Amino acid sequence: MPQNHVDYLFVHGWLVTMDSQLNVYTDGAIAVKDDAIIAVGPTAELEAGYTAGTVIDCTDCIISPGLVNAHTHAPMTLLRGLADDLRLDVWLYGYMMPVEREFVDHNFCYTGTLLACAEMIRSGITTFCDMYYNEAEVARATAKAGMRAILGQTILKFPSPDASNYDESLEYCRNFIEAWLEHPLVIPAVAPHAAYTATPDMIKSCVALATEYDVPLHIHIAETALEQKNSVAQFDTTVVPWLDQYNLFNAKVIAAHCVHLEETEMRTLHRHNTGVAHCPSSNLKLASGVAPVQKMVDLGLHVGIGTDGPASNNDLDMFEETRLASFLQKGIFADPTLLPARQTWALATIEGARALHIDHLTGSLEPGKRADIAVIAADSTHQLPRFTRDPEAVYSQLVYATKATDVRHVMVNGQMLMQDRNLLTINEAGIIADARQIAAQIDAFLTAREDNLLSKLLAITADFIPQETYEIQVKICLSQPVNLDAMLAKAGLSPFRTSIRKQYDTYFFFDDPEAGRLRFREDEVKRSQADEVPAETFYRMTLMGPSSERNFENSIVLSRSRFNATAGHTRRFYREYFRPAAIRDVVKSRQRCHVVYKDKDFAINLDQLEDANQVYLEIKSRTWSAKDAALKAELIGELLGIFGFDQQNQLKVEYVDLTE
Amino acid sequence: MPQNHVDYLFVHGWLVTMDSQLNVYTDGAIAVKDDAIIAVGPTAELEAGYTAGTVIDCTDCIISPGLVNAHTHAPMTLLRGLADDLRLDVWLYGYMMPVEREFVDHNFCYTGTLLACAEMIRSGITTFCDMYYNEAEVARATAKAGMRAILGQTILKFPSPDASNYDESLEYCRNFIEAWLEHPLVIPAVAPHAAYTATPDMIKSCVALATEYDVPLHIHIAETALEQKNSVAQFDTTVVPWLDQYNLFNAKVIAAHCVHLEETEMRTLHRHNTGVAHCPSSNLKLASGVAPVQKMVDLGLHVGIGTDGPASNNDLDMFEETRLASFLQKGIFADPTLLPARQTWALATIEGARALHIDHLTGSLEPGKRADIAVIAADSTHQLPRFTRDPEAVYSQLVYATKATDVRHVMVNGQMLMQDRNLLTINEAGIIADARQIAAQIDAFLTAREDNLLSKLLAITADFIPQETYEIQVKICLSQPVNLDAMLAKAGLSPFRTSIRKQYDTYFFFDDPEAGRLRFREDEVKRSQADEVPAETFYRMTLMGPSSERNFENSIVLSRSRFNATAGHTRRFYREYFRPAAIRDVVKSRQRCHVVYKDKDFAINLDQLEDANQVYLEIKSRTWSAKDAALKAELIGELLGIFGFDQQNQLKVEYVDLTE
Repeated sequence: MPQNHVDYLFVHGWLVTMDSQLNVYTDGAIAVKDDAIIAVGPTAELEAGYTAGTVIDCTDCIISPGLVNAHTHAPMTLLRGLADDLRLDVWLYGYMMPVEREFVDHNFCYTGTLLACAEMIRSGITTFCDMYYNEAEVARATAKAGMRAILGQTILKFPSPDASNYDESLEYCRNFIEAWLEHPLVIPAVAPHAAYTATPDMIKSCVALATEYDVPLHIHIAETALEQKNSVAQFDTTVVPWLDQYNLFNAKVIAAHCVHLEETEMRTLHRHNTGVAHCPSSNLKLASGVAPVQKMVDLGLHVGIGTDGPASNNDLDMFEETRLASFLQKGIFADPTLLPARQTWALATIEGARALHIDHLTGSLEPGKRADIAVIAADSTHQLPRFTRDPEAVYSQLVYATKATDVRHVMVNGQMLMQDRNLLTINEAGIIADARQIAAQIDAFLTAREDNLLSKLLAITADFIPQETYEIQVKICLSQPVNLDAMLAKAGLSPFRTSIRKQYDTYFFFDDPEAGRLRFREDEVKRSQADEVPAETFYRMTLMGPSSERNFENSIVLSRSRFNATAGHTRRFYREYFRPAAIRDVVKSRQRCHVVYKDKDFAINLDQLEDANQVYLEIKSRTWSAKDAALKAELIGELLGIFGFDQQNQLKVEYVDLTE
Repeated sequence: MPQNHVDYLFVHGWLVTMDSQLNVYTDGAIAVKDDAIIAVGPTAELEAGYTAGTVIDCTDCIISPGLVNAHTHAPMTLLRGLADDLRLDVWLYGYMMPVEREFVDHNFCYTGTLLACAEMIRSGITTFCDMYYNEAEVARATAKAGMRAILGQTILKFPSPDASNYDESLEYCRNFIEAWLEHPLVIPAVAPHAAYTATPDMIKSCVALATEYDVPLHIHIAETALEQKNSVAQFDTTVVPWLDQYNLFNAKVIAAHCVHLEETEMRTLHRHNTGVAHCPSSNLKLASGVAPVQKMVDLGLHVGIGTDGPASNNDLDMFEETRLASFLQKGIFADPTLLPARQTWALATIEGARALHIDHLTGSLEPGKRADIAVIAADSTHQLPRFTRDPEAVYSQLVYATKATDVRHVMVNGQMLMQDRNLLTINEAGIIADARQIAAQIDAFLTAREDNLLSKLLAITADFIPQETYEIQVKICLSQPVNLDAMLAKAGLSPFRTSIRKQYDTYFFFDDPEAGRLRFREDEVKRSQADEVPAETFYRMTLMGPSSERNFENSIVLSRSRFNATAGHTRRFYREYFRPAAIRDVVKSRQRCHVVYKDKDFAINLDQLEDANQVYLEIKSRTWSAKDAALKAELIGELLGIFGFDQQNQLKVEYVDLTE
């Protein structure tokens, strides 16, 4: 055989090709020239056929296709460990989104991606599929690191950290695609975030853009049961058919998660050759569930494995994901023969490449494909001993006993990115220093916010408004029921803005009384006694600063800061977000009206506290002026006289403090 | 403060004490003298108070209590990756038990334990709880490695690799306890394997032994749903109440797995202060399910985390287990706030020590406890950046982003076992060489066995018997039904051993015809036509070697090896164990009798094949002698003549080949 000269010859490895025959060579070799694999086979054969600029001895190592991380958000390395063990909404709306709004800029995306690439190369990943903001910066970092990637620019129906609307995002995405379309490593993509964050118009524009340039379209699909439930409630159909209406699957789609697909939806994806990215760690950590991977694979779908972003994982370790993918199918679908090691390793490599629509480039070690190679030590204590009886044993060793830290060398596109665990394209110490700096800023931002209930509320609330500083109030404990209308008529007062309410109040108390207290109110309002059901229900969040009191003869004046906003989240959300030291509930039925007395507006409430067989009459007013407050305190005394109430039945505390 | 001299001072670490206040020191130190922790606190304070023989700088590291591996079978490192992706019975009866029967001796247990200790020390484990055979050898290796351990000698109701009966095991166990009771690191224990492998008498003896010496009792409980189901079927009660009858929980019990406990069973365990060892990887890999850990913890049970044996994991990585324990509770019980990082780290350390009944010795870093310490790098790329806002962040970093390979130093009982990832007490290369040698022998044993159906069958079958070499048979395809009794009476023959059978035969075929074929027969037998249901059902496994044929005028003589045994497993078991290239089923109704003709015994069968509207008469005999076979072939011809059958209706193949 004539000796051909190549750039690299990897020799004497246990070579796992993942080609269509799943050929394995126990003493195998690969020849690499430029960006491509020239030959694969027994070492003796390749040594006879090729001379090489560099020979890499892989004795006691496995040579495998580099791993394909089918779904991640690379820059989120910078948010790793920022907020854990939280419910999805608290995590997302309370931490991720406020921090992203504040910090996600070009530098964040570039630095975060380089940190991610360092970690991914270290764990044998050669290709990843990303979805984030400022994706051109992600591309710049990826190209610098020398990794192969599909990089999806996120499109959302609402404002995002890099765009004030989706027209801007689409325009950015078009420019991004044009700039990177011919790059040898980076494949730009369109990434509408998910069905529930899209409009039909937005979806159609994304599909048009992806098909115009023949680039992939990356999207989250059916990550949670709630997503499917909401889709059915709103559109009378699950997510895949809803997206299918707008021809989403005509694009080269990569669907992340797919935890809660119906079988018909799987068939739709299969018919359109949609790739699936299974993210087992993230789906457990965020309590989304376990995707039926074996079923999807059996239906013929191409399923890859992804780490998801490091804020929900918290690392980018494909060995962990691969092992977990296999274990979960066995343990949750109650059959230890599901996703055997060989099939699972295929998901992590060639099937991942198929799911990303780039198996003509990568995913297996075959002549003609790009040289994307991981050399993995196979002689660590935790991997030994090794049995050779069963040719499947190499897959078992890879999936069940090998760690990311066993990866020794990594090559992408013919370029060595890591040799003997030294990164060759990334200044790791420099990137870590940059990452620490950004993390310190985020830390300071959140620390300041967390120390202050108002700023913590502002971080998650759009319409917060400050209220009047002074509240003048008196409560009378009634010894017998009163007819409010009759009482007011007798006093010559005309009630207006009358309503019947049921108010469910939850108060959050904190260790530091200076922090103030929060009230979450669910306020069911009937316009009149005749209404059978409430006409409206309001959800309000109120922050009450600590109050200083001034007692008048017949009333009390409270002076304090007070902020009020529509509560956009649930009571449970606020509880988990604020983690109060104590919680107390007050439920009452309230008959409410306003009256004008001597040109001043007073609210008059007849309150029946639940769990207390007691009715209270409350007279209340608010103002910005101390002088006005004093005047109103006097007027409340006059009103009490007109109504004929005794002073000794006055109650000068709030209901919630009464129940203490 | 006067300067006290200590042996070691660990300084400048992020110190996670896991004490009752869960104190964390961001710049913390520990002073160690002899085997004990003398002081824990801020570095400045300890540096002022102590001088040390050795000062270990833990800058950029976390100092944590060493991890507690609450359940393993250490010597099974030597079976790592031997057989994976199999159903539990095939894995256990087909591979683990035959190999253990053949290979588990003193050297196996000593070598396997040292390999396990090397791996465990490398991943920060300082204490483990074991259950295996020849436990004195496990103890010898553990003491050599310098690890702390509870070592349970396995007791089984049937013969085990180290005893022919449980009296022997109990005697061995008593000697083992007496020899090791005073050891500073090894705590001997009694380990009845499980309820389903015990007799009441055996349980009572184990409890008596454990309480006599006040040593722990280690047992598997409710690992699978089947175990609970079988217990209810057999004893009309689930496993815990069954064991409770024999006062098992009066001992200091460590219950491994507990995947399928009812709440009342959890309460029983709680009442008796039984420790639980949760093994998430193993329970997934063997498809047992997910234990309700959060529920057990909330009920007050002390739950530790275990790797289980490396044959069902396949490693001894407590970081993997800990992360998985948290993720599974969140993902499977649909709440991301379950088992938060801090609580999970407690399970891996102090709660593990409580579950093992040794929290007075280990599990937390407090003055007076033994110095069992892991120093873990906290500045790896995959762990960064780090946020300090939330004091819980150190737990999140440990549980969600740290790998076993980040462990840098390990100390047990005041002795350094690993420094800068170098093992100090174990000759790792030597042990690996020993392990490879044993693995090669196992490989050779299994390879030989797998190449040969007979030895593969013998490995899982107790009562296999060789049958006669020659089978003489003829089958007549009947054009019209016959009355067998009438036909024999007319011929002057007296039938005996008559029966009516329904035979469900499954044939396994292999690629190599020289391998022979296997038949699994379910044989329902009625003693007479009058029986409504079968009197008995036999399950038989038959191995038929390739046959050479000799045709006689009226019959065929087959000569071949043939082995027959009671089938102790299911049809499914044999299919998965032998992995045949093809499977064919034959179902038939058989009227059977024997007759004596000219002093020779012949079986006469009237067979109705299912799925073939055809009845066959079969005459058959077997012998060890070629000469006798030829004679019987002649006699069969005579019988056919007496019965009046034509030669052209003869069928000279087996039914299974007919259906080909």
